[in-house]
Amino acid sequence: MPTVGIVGAGQLARMMHQAAVALGVDTAVLANAADESAARVASGVELGSPDDLDALRRLARRSDVVTFDHELVEPAHLAALESEGHVLRPGPATLEIAVNKLEQRRRFAAAGLPLPGWAEARTTGEVRDFAASNGWPVVIKAARGGYDGRGVWVCRDETEVATVPRLGDGGRFIVEAFVTIDQELAVNVARSANGETRVYPVVDSLQRAGVCNEVVAPSRQPEAIQRQALHIGFAVSQLVGGAGNLAIELFVSDGRVLINEIAARPHNSGHFSIEGCVTSQFENHLRGVLGWPLGDTRLVAPAAVMVNVFGHTSSPRPELNLPEAVAVEGAHLHWYGKTSRPGRKLGHVTTLGADPDSALATAREAAAILDPGVREAR
Amino acid sequence: MPTVGIVGAGQLARMMHQAAVALGVDTAVLANAADESAARVASGVELGSPDDLDALRRLARRSDVVTFDHELVEPAHLAALESEGHVLRPGPATLEIAVNKLEQRRRFAAAGLPLPGWAEARTTGEVRDFAASNGWPVVIKAARGGYDGRGVWVCRDETEVATVPRLGDGGRFIVEAFVTIDQELAVNVARSANGETRVYPVVDSLQRAGVCNEVVAPSRQPEAIQRQALHIGFAVSQLVGGAGNLAIELFVSDGRVLINEIAARPHNSGHFSIEGCVTSQFENHLRGVLGWPLGDTRLVAPAAVMVNVFGHTSSPRPELNLPEAVAVEGAHLHWYGKTSRPGRKLGHVTTLGADPDSALATAREAAAILDPGVREAR
Repeated sequence: MPTVGIVGAGQLARMMHQAAVALGVDTAVLANAADESAARVASGVELGSPDDLDALRRLARRSDVVTFDHELVEPAHLAALESEGHVLRPGPATLEIAVNKLEQRRRFAAAGLPLPGWAEARTTGEVRDFAASNGWPVVIKAARGGYDGRGVWVCRDETEVATVPRLGDGGRFIVEAFVTIDQELAVNVARSANGETRVYPVVDSLQRAGVCNEVVAPSRQPEAIQRQALHIGFAVSQLVGGAGNLAIELFVSDGRVLINEIAARPHNSGHFSIEGCVTSQFENHLRGVLGWPLGDTRLVAPAAVMVNVFGHTSSPRPELNLPEAVAVEGAHLHWYGKTSRPGRKLGHVTTLGADPDSALATAREAAAILDPGVREAR
Repeated sequence: MPTVGIVGAGQLARMMHQAAVALGVDTAVLANAADESAARVASGVELGSPDDLDALRRLARRSDVVTFDHELVEPAHLAALESEGHVLRPGPATLEIAVNKLEQRRRFAAAGLPLPGWAEARTTGEVRDFAASNGWPVVIKAARGGYDGRGVWVCRDETEVATVPRLGDGGRFIVEAFVTIDQELAVNVARSANGETRVYPVVDSLQRAGVCNEVVAPSRQPEAIQRQALHIGFAVSQLVGGAGNLAIELFVSDGRVLINEIAARPHNSGHFSIEGCVTSQFENHLRGVLGWPLGDTRLVAPAAVMVNVFGHTSSPRPELNLPEAVAVEGAHLHWYGKTSRPGRKLGHVTTLGADPDSALATAREAAAILDPGVREAR
């Protein structure tokens, strides 16, 4: 059987491994420490840093295909691995687009895909010029490396712009118009190295502090909006190429769908698919990077919802509440085996149902037993 | 998080580990070799034989609870582990009933549960006496240790009885009336160490050469038959005690439901529950042995069917066909990572559907790509 090497050992690698068990596919994960989420459950663990080319090489040598739990790998290392004959999926070109917001904006704009107004900005002056024609506030984003709200600053005026680290000091940034967000959406697209593409249903993504918090599938947005989202998702997948899961996060703003971020890996917005779809994003990611045929991405129930569980100051050992949480009928628990820290993603709960509201009520009930923040957010 | 130690590293341990990943529960498996089915995918592997008390101790010391992939462990070893303070679930008393057909028959008969006519037999003479009143053929079963058709002999006359090894030579056997089997059924019962019990839907079990081959959930037998089966399943679970999954295999013979075999662990007849039920037998087994609340055992679709994949002489490397098999839409593949040998269980396919026949057609189509025997059996 083939071995899929996974750079990183977080919960995405953990859930990829879980999917690999059923497919009979072996995995190896590159972990910083033996107690990382995926390293706790996977048999093949290579200890080392994703910043260390030798560690990446050790992983690649025991793997038929190398894929990624996260995109934060030095491009030069990726190029070195590829030149040594290792198969990376997605490859360096796709990963570079995924991590480089400036590059993304350029390509998406060139393809006529809808984006919030944007410009490259290296200095406070360039931000000021952008705001002069687009108005305040503006959103400043680091060109590379940001995700889950990191590397993003909303600035109401020039004083706030001055607080952005490395702006005007060699850092590369983009500045975007601050758009009214009526709803955040996500589309997950599965791509196989054999050329096949399948799109998951559009979902509503409910955010908390810049991080995906709840997901409702299918989206409750009007069909026209969902069609736009599917069209954009498919177009983006063609532009960025690569294999495996691709997540496209979108805004609905004044009746238009705009691209927010993309991730070239399984994504929090697709976790609902483990129970909610015929084939999960994790299974399709593996199939895709192996060049196998993809599985059916349709929902198996009228509604599937997901609620994240975060670490909370008032609940230092939430895992002790797992028996109580699993007792909530119909709540599917996914616990990542991580030590709790405030704000850290520790797990998620998925519930299927006849309608999103009843499913959300059940999933929130279970999640709140582990994360008091779920109730506070209501 | 608690660690569940699993004695044995076959596909049942593999699928338990897969369920443990979602629950955040750590596992350790006792494997004879590092390439056994579960050892290929689990992070915690203790190498050693289940016949070796020291190996069992090493497993138990790193586990909060010890459970079983198979029941073939020396009773004295189990008693030793328990006396040293380790928690075994199910415990030695339950396991002894599960492996000892003579003990089972005695207890089930004493409780008034329906069995084929039976007697203890240590000699050919005792078998002859039984046949004199019950007729030929008879079924001779080793009192301990048989499963999947091993340790079972159908004898049409005394000459055939003479071929049963160790009969008349100190071996302990039971002799049973050869009953007409109209249908084989199975009931899986989840039990928690907290006292809770939940019963899975009755299934039709289609056999090939004495081994469960296909499972159809729910059973297509009349409701009265299914009620008998559920009643027997629940009664047996109360008699044998213990925690985790308990499988009760049954015959329908002339309108009556009779007990065939039991297994105090997850069972092939319950594999359909991974996709087919809200909570799989593997997840409920873990919850049960941990004393956690059990999950909903109801079906998530009108029909769920499972087809086993066996090794076949004409297909020495069936894993090479996995990409083709997963391309069958709606077929959920489970591959155990084992080297193919003729007749060896290598994997299974589950399909959900609106009715059993269409689901079976899909599952057989995928299974036949891996196991030419699936077509031959039609």
